[in-house]
Amino acid sequence: MHSMQFTAQTTSNGVVERDFTVDGIPGVLWSPASGPERAPLVLMGHGGGTHKKWPAMPGRAHRLVDVGGFHVACIDSPGHGDRPRTAYDEQEIAALYRAREAGEPEGPIVVRYNAHLAERAVPEWQATLDALQALPEIGAEGPVGYYGLNMGTAIGVPLAAADPRITAAVFGLHWPDALAATAGRITVPVQFHLQWDDEHIPREAGLALFDAFASEEKTLHANTGRHKEHPRFEADSAVRFFARHLTRSVPAAALS
Amino acid sequence: MHSMQFTAQTTSNGVVERDFTVDGIPGVLWSPASGPERAPLVLMGHGGGTHKKWPAMPGRAHRLVDVGGFHVACIDSPGHGDRPRTAYDEQEIAALYRAREAGEPEGPIVVRYNAHLAERAVPEWQATLDALQALPEIGAEGPVGYYGLNMGTAIGVPLAAADPRITAAVFGLHWPDALAATAGRITVPVQFHLQWDDEHIPREAGLALFDAFASEEKTLHANTGRHKEHPRFEADSAVRFFARHLTRSVPAAALS
Repeated sequence: MHSMQFTAQTTSNGVVERDFTVDGIPGVLWSPASGPERAPLVLMGHGGGTHKKWPAMPGRAHRLVDVGGFHVACIDSPGHGDRPRTAYDEQEIAALYRAREAGEPEGPIVVRYNAHLAERAVPEWQATLDALQALPEIGAEGPVGYYGLNMGTAIGVPLAAADPRITAAVFGLHWPDALAATAGRITVPVQFHLQWDDEHIPREAGLALFDAFASEEKTLHANTGRHKEHPRFEADSAVRFFARHLTRSVPAAALS
Repeated sequence: MHSMQFTAQTTSNGVVERDFTVDGIPGVLWSPASGPERAPLVLMGHGGGTHKKWPAMPGRAHRLVDVGGFHVACIDSPGHGDRPRTAYDEQEIAALYRAREAGEPEGPIVVRYNAHLAERAVPEWQATLDALQALPEIGAEGPVGYYGLNMGTAIGVPLAAADPRITAAVFGLHWPDALAATAGRITVPVQFHLQWDDEHIPREAGLALFDAFASEEKTLHANTGRHKEHPRFEADSAVRFFARHLTRSVPAAALS
């Protein structure tokens, strides 16, 4: 049994935000301030260099709670947020900054480092999911979604391939190199986001990762713009995707 | 001035459906049974071999009226629905059936025939738009959307390139051959639908047409499945796209 502790709680705009730790890993759980006794869970993976409360995370969480009535959880990835960096973390981050300054491609470093982080993060996510499913308001029977772009995809793809509790996932903005073979073992519905003019990830590479998923239902959302110009309305697309796949009786607002 | 006549009217589920003709071209206008004095207009182009009241058309129209409060219009394309076929129409339709029976590619015939139909249809659409904008509940100042897949894209791309009144468009499911150059003159926001496993339109061909639009904002929605398996939830994506682009104050339901 994992050791889960709640350490802080606030409420804003109908959303309860609870900080927690599971086996010492810091996380945050967003939940409806009022609602049914039990609701589905969406796990959110943050991007590289950010953390569980980077603005996009509570922003997406509030939409997921508002529209879907879901519980939403995010944990700090290894070496991110409130977690210490190893010597290897420091080494790879320094390599990334050197490549950026030299105008060299980031891809080879990000792909390699994210694959390493995923090996550390997948068992942490599984322990977190065990602990979250032990909460009465979540439970072990409900469907579970995963939503993560960039590094959140590098971690989420092996997590979804390893853990059958995840029944729908939103991924995107990553290279296929270390992930395509694993993506080929994923059969749950997938929504995949890609930037058509990504200056880091070649278009063909992004399309190849989308193509690699074995899911019978998968949807690509490709938008004009560079890597960091991923449009905010795609967060709404993700919310509707989860409303469609995690909810038995979908709220009318989610379908409209 | 064009001759517009309303010929029939019914109301169901809060949507008024009015049959009309403009210069003898038969069309249908769906409108909110109650709502603001004036609302934006969405033009819908039907697919090849179908017509203005093919089930997908009223289905999409009802969603657009329900969520966006829009007026929605569709006219029969040349040689379709209530309109007579020319000898050339008969010849091309026969060629298409022969190709299908022989298991030969449909693309070359559909591309050629649709380009011909578009030449006839674009001025008809512009006359229809003139007449619709003369209605007090639509007006000449409001934004206009266009939504058409398959043949609806073959007609809609040259229409949107020719008519600056169209300020947002949903296209998809077509070859680039006769359209890519024209698409390169379109700069309004575009949502483009593509079937990832289309047995008629090669994947690269569909991606090439998406790529050809000059729009600063364009989004590709690619789904697993064959040509006719285009999922119904993409109609909701189109509705939300128009709600985002045609409405100044977007209804809360459309954003959720």
